[in-house]
Amino acid sequence: MAPPNKALVLFAHGARAASWAAPFERLRELSAARLPDCMVRLAFLELMEPRLPETVAQLVAEGVGEVTIVPVFLGQGGHLLRDLPLLAEGLRAAHPGLKLTVVGAVGEDPQVLAAMTDYCVRSLG
Amino acid sequence: MAPPNKALVLFAHGARAASWAAPFERLRELSAARLPDCMVRLAFLELMEPRLPETVAQLVAEGVGEVTIVPVFLGQGGHLLRDLPLLAEGLRAAHPGLKLTVVGAVGEDPQVLAAMTDYCVRSLG
Repeated sequence: MAPPNKALVLFAHGARAASWAAPFERLRELSAARLPDCMVRLAFLELMEPRLPETVAQLVAEGVGEVTIVPVFLGQGGHLLRDLPLLAEGLRAAHPGLKLTVVGAVGEDPQVLAAMTDYCVRSLG
Repeated sequence: MAPPNKALVLFAHGARAASWAAPFERLRELSAARLPDCMVRLAFLELMEPRLPETVAQLVAEGVGEVTIVPVFLGQGGHLLRDLPLLAEGLRAAHPGLKLTVVGAVGEDPQVLAAMTDYCVRSLG
């Protein structure tokens, strides 16, 4: 069987505390379970491994031709406005045959905002 | 009419880019619309104003007796494991009559994770 040609990379900030990554790992597992024909990986901007360039290089080496990067960030600050476009530019230069797509941050999605609103309202007890 | 006795404080990291705060402001608006008998405020850990201590002091000055803090963070790293408990301790010392509750991070909520999973799956197109 040929390996999947598509990959989804969940791109998160990273932190010093290992516990920080737990919801991102869970998100990766939940997404992978819904996408059996797609590789789903987690990559970090800083402080944690693997980083984005290594993750994408590994996927390309495994035969992946299309990569979609989902920024798992709540707000669009300097990391998404400046760091991620530079990383994406470097990836396109390093892998000219790769179809690379970067979508908006999860925190900007109306359904994610609605679920966070529900959580805030429920928090009040 | 007496002012609300309860307040919900959405506690976010803060960033240099003003655009970063947009989904947090939206979350505050959506939550406030669902909680007419509660004040809903946004406060930041760093880089943006207002900060948490000033926000809570202002609420207490306005007559609020119960404050629930919702960390609008995806992962539980040093900011939630170390910084927020210290801030909460300071708030309890500064406002001994206040009932202060700190709930878990929004990113740990199963419904928020489910909405983020939907977004990741949809991102693949």
